[in-house]
Amino acid sequence: MTAHFIVTGCAGFIGSHFVDRALALGHRVTGIDNFSTGQRSFLQAALAHPNFHLHPIDLLDHDAVRAAFDGGDCVVHLAANADVRFGPDHPGRDLEQNTIATFHVLEAMRALGIRRIAFSSTGSVYGEAAVIPTPEDAPFPVQTSLYGASKLACEGMIAAYCEAYGMQSWIFRFVSILGERYTHGHVFDFYRQLQTDPHHLRILGDGHQRKSYLHVQDCVGAMMLALERAGDRVNLFNLGVDDHCKVLDSVGWICEAMGVQPTLSFSGGQRGWVGDNPFIHLDTRRIQALGWQPAFSIRQGVERTVGFLRANEWLLEARA
Amino acid sequence: MTAHFIVTGCAGFIGSHFVDRALALGHRVTGIDNFSTGQRSFLQAALAHPNFHLHPIDLLDHDAVRAAFDGGDCVVHLAANADVRFGPDHPGRDLEQNTIATFHVLEAMRALGIRRIAFSSTGSVYGEAAVIPTPEDAPFPVQTSLYGASKLACEGMIAAYCEAYGMQSWIFRFVSILGERYTHGHVFDFYRQLQTDPHHLRILGDGHQRKSYLHVQDCVGAMMLALERAGDRVNLFNLGVDDHCKVLDSVGWICEAMGVQPTLSFSGGQRGWVGDNPFIHLDTRRIQALGWQPAFSIRQGVERTVGFLRANEWLLEARA
Repeated sequence: MTAHFIVTGCAGFIGSHFVDRALALGHRVTGIDNFSTGQRSFLQAALAHPNFHLHPIDLLDHDAVRAAFDGGDCVVHLAANADVRFGPDHPGRDLEQNTIATFHVLEAMRALGIRRIAFSSTGSVYGEAAVIPTPEDAPFPVQTSLYGASKLACEGMIAAYCEAYGMQSWIFRFVSILGERYTHGHVFDFYRQLQTDPHHLRILGDGHQRKSYLHVQDCVGAMMLALERAGDRVNLFNLGVDDHCKVLDSVGWICEAMGVQPTLSFSGGQRGWVGDNPFIHLDTRRIQALGWQPAFSIRQGVERTVGFLRANEWLLEARA
Repeated sequence: MTAHFIVTGCAGFIGSHFVDRALALGHRVTGIDNFSTGQRSFLQAALAHPNFHLHPIDLLDHDAVRAAFDGGDCVVHLAANADVRFGPDHPGRDLEQNTIATFHVLEAMRALGIRRIAFSSTGSVYGEAAVIPTPEDAPFPVQTSLYGASKLACEGMIAAYCEAYGMQSWIFRFVSILGERYTHGHVFDFYRQLQTDPHHLRILGDGHQRKSYLHVQDCVGAMMLALERAGDRVNLFNLGVDDHCKVLDSVGWICEAMGVQPTLSFSGGQRGWVGDNPFIHLDTRRIQALGWQPAFSIRQGVERTVGFLRANEWLLEARA
């Protein structure tokens, strides 16, 4: 059965992949993006597709949101301020672009009678997890980043709307996502540094932070599968590979793929920035139990990301 | 050592008791209230005290908040929309009066360099808890009420501000609070019904919901003790008695105290309203380990509340 998806953040990294996948599966897609960080070129294929309609609007404009959502039957809410690292420089940004924007999404859904929502949350809601690999029902965590706190606020509102108004939700807690159309994060930063100066690489923290990464195609595949197969009122899933690497491992793969051998320097400390989590590895047995397996390893994800950046160096300028 | 407390919601039920206790202990207190539900008469003693100053302002007015907070060294943030039951009728109210107001509080603290905050959260953040009595590190819950979700959003922001800006917080997850100056909740509703018609009492749900209650003096005492004795960056405490009762037990005590024998009727179902939690009993060993014990049982709390309402029937009108 085909659906009419409303995809917020449709011109973003994950959003544009979700749009392409949904169109390939025969669904209708209404895409919403304010192009604050989204790239029109990521929608090149979608814009040529008869089942795709783009609304270049902001989620804080609630009349425009309501008009754009009309007729949809499942909202895939991926628009967000996804800048974890610089949260403390702009503490209002996560509140406005994540928490308040999500409230506008939910209110539009309520007004229009749209009953299904998928949401991109984050493994950052686990703070510095006491249990690793971290399951969805880990001990109630203490928040360590404004970004994580705002995503947790969104999760809470979504679940409460499901209870109050009979909606149904699929909440995905992502590790960091990699792959084609990747526009920020450590691979991007390291690639850009090494393009400018292949002899030196500056690393935040001590390089021993342990992280987990998932390829964007695996991420989108897991979301689609959960939407099809999970039928609770609130469906919560960690999304990641069942593995982790050190930042230094990733540095090695990037350097090998780029053919460079830089001298490394370190900002030092266990954490790359305030609120950085020195060890992220999510327990993904719940999504695996639905029959999902990632196709790409962390190393393959990093290497494909380097390949994409090499072929799309305009992005380094666009995001400078 | 005495402190200068900034108490938001100072004219409310818990806030006014906190003000009185702080003044009695020799502290300076700046009180803030927008009088949307606060009662000026609750501040009668405080207003006559030389160490108390009242600012009748709204927390959403950020210039006024910043001016009023200036010079304080610990914010006790109790102002909130505390109406759990009617959340679904006004979904924006919890977001605005809880989440966004708390953001304004935190931003004023950051601007002024105030580093300590105590916050009234709620046992509702545990949703329908999987573990009872529910400890602070219970399995990561799914939210079931807009009120709980907004308090969780506040908790997350507060913890993230502590991490990002070196603040320190004391977050209290309350059960329902009872006692003198009580202005809403089941005892209030039942008392008002029985004043109007002592022969009939309508009960939401089936009366078998199990709840826990704490007397306001015990609540304020626990907060003061935790502020003195708990020194982590984020200090999380459940506050409640180590017991629960059925709604029907409480009905019996209220009727006995009022000398009435009404016929009971029930709206039916396990839950009194959408998002109501049929079983609340918090594990309070963490606050007890600091040397705290409640002085009042649930029954004593209910009886003292009835006594207070009998002596203050003007409140039934004021809150009609």
